Amino acid sequence: MPKQVDHHERRESIAHALWRVVDQHGWARATMREVAREAGVSLGQLQHYFSSRAEMLAFAMEFASEQTSRRVSRSLRSLDQPPHPRDVLRVVLTEMLPLRPDSRATSRMNAAYVLEAMHDPSLRQQIGLGLRDGRAMIETLIREAMSQGHIRSDCDPIIETDLVLALTGLVPLLDLDVIEPQAALAAIDQHLDRLFAPAS
Amino acid sequence: MPKQVDHHERRESIAHALWRVVDQHGWARATMREVAREAGVSLGQLQHYFSSRAEMLAFAMEFASEQTSRRVSRSLRSLDQPPHPRDVLRVVLTEMLPLRPDSRATSRMNAAYVLEAMHDPSLRQQIGLGLRDGRAMIETLIREAMSQGHIRSDCDPIIETDLVLALTGLVPLLDLDVIEPQAALAAIDQHLDRLFAPAS
Repeated sequence: MPKQVDHHERRESIAHALWRVVDQHGWARATMREVAREAGVSLGQLQHYFSSRAEMLAFAMEFASEQTSRRVSRSLRSLDQPPHPRDVLRVVLTEMLPLRPDSRATSRMNAAYVLEAMHDPSLRQQIGLGLRDGRAMIETLIREAMSQGHIRSDCDPIIETDLVLALTGLVPLLDLDVIEPQAALAAIDQHLDRLFAPAS
Repeated sequence: MPKQVDHHERRESIAHALWRVVDQHGWARATMREVAREAGVSLGQLQHYFSSRAEMLAFAMEFASEQTSRRVSRSLRSLDQPPHPRDVLRVVLTEMLPLRPDSRATSRMNAAYVLEAMHDPSLRQQIGLGLRDGRAMIETLIREAMSQGHIRSDCDPIIETDLVLALTGLVPLLDLDVIEPQAALAAIDQHLDRLFAPAS
């Protein structure tokens, strides 16, 4: 199915163009016209792939989240096998933080995405599904760690999952230079140390 | 100085109009024209008070943050005196969460504000100052609680401050209905219980 592949590749190259526009000029300036210019296609061609700005953003975010998943998988494979659940959570959390060169654009797009989602039911559903999937994955990890004795059995796995997810609150602090990357990593380590502390 | 007062009142009433537009239609639709209409003034009059959308947003956020400070002060006065530092932190944290009727608009404006700030140096400076002030206030609270023996003396006050600030990561989870308000409060209580746990 070469046509299918082309279609997907073209969408990915448009997502990259959107990324560059958002990184350089911000989401507010990322019009369909501007992205078409950056991607080297006509506005009509762009509209053939994406019928709206919101749809383009939704695809770009899905693509970014696939790439994050791939980075997480790669980092997980480099851990001792089987990996300690603390190391797994640390990889997941550090991959969520804007510590990489491409992460500034991703952060900005994510902020735009959450903002648009508050008023766009289909974006809202997409982002909700993604967040619930991520939440379920972390809760499974925490429950397994509890059953293996790595986390105290009197912890509430639901509350602990929400607290791990809440650490994404470090993202805007990093983006706005309120804290340094080293401080964010130290905060994550402190939280994980406490979560994985032996029963006293 | 009645003219000064009028000027300030008019700016506040415009901020309220912006709030309503953002709550009903989202930030993307909150143009100067739309806000002028909602505030019942002409576009020219609006431009007399705010020269740009970004300036209007900056004022609305400053005003929202003043109102939050007032709510925090009111809640703090209702605590036993002198209040326990755990209760003080709980008040500050719960006031940051979108648990009130007016909080949906504030959350949306805040998301818009962070997004604009990533590209607007003066907004970036304003939001950075606000966050650093908030951070300093929480760090002072934590250092005092440590010196009074409420928090273990082997804690790192900087890391603990960043972890408390990171709990703002619960805000988008609440806004997007990924978690319920009760779950967010339970997460805050669990974090504070652990922070204020006696030395083992």
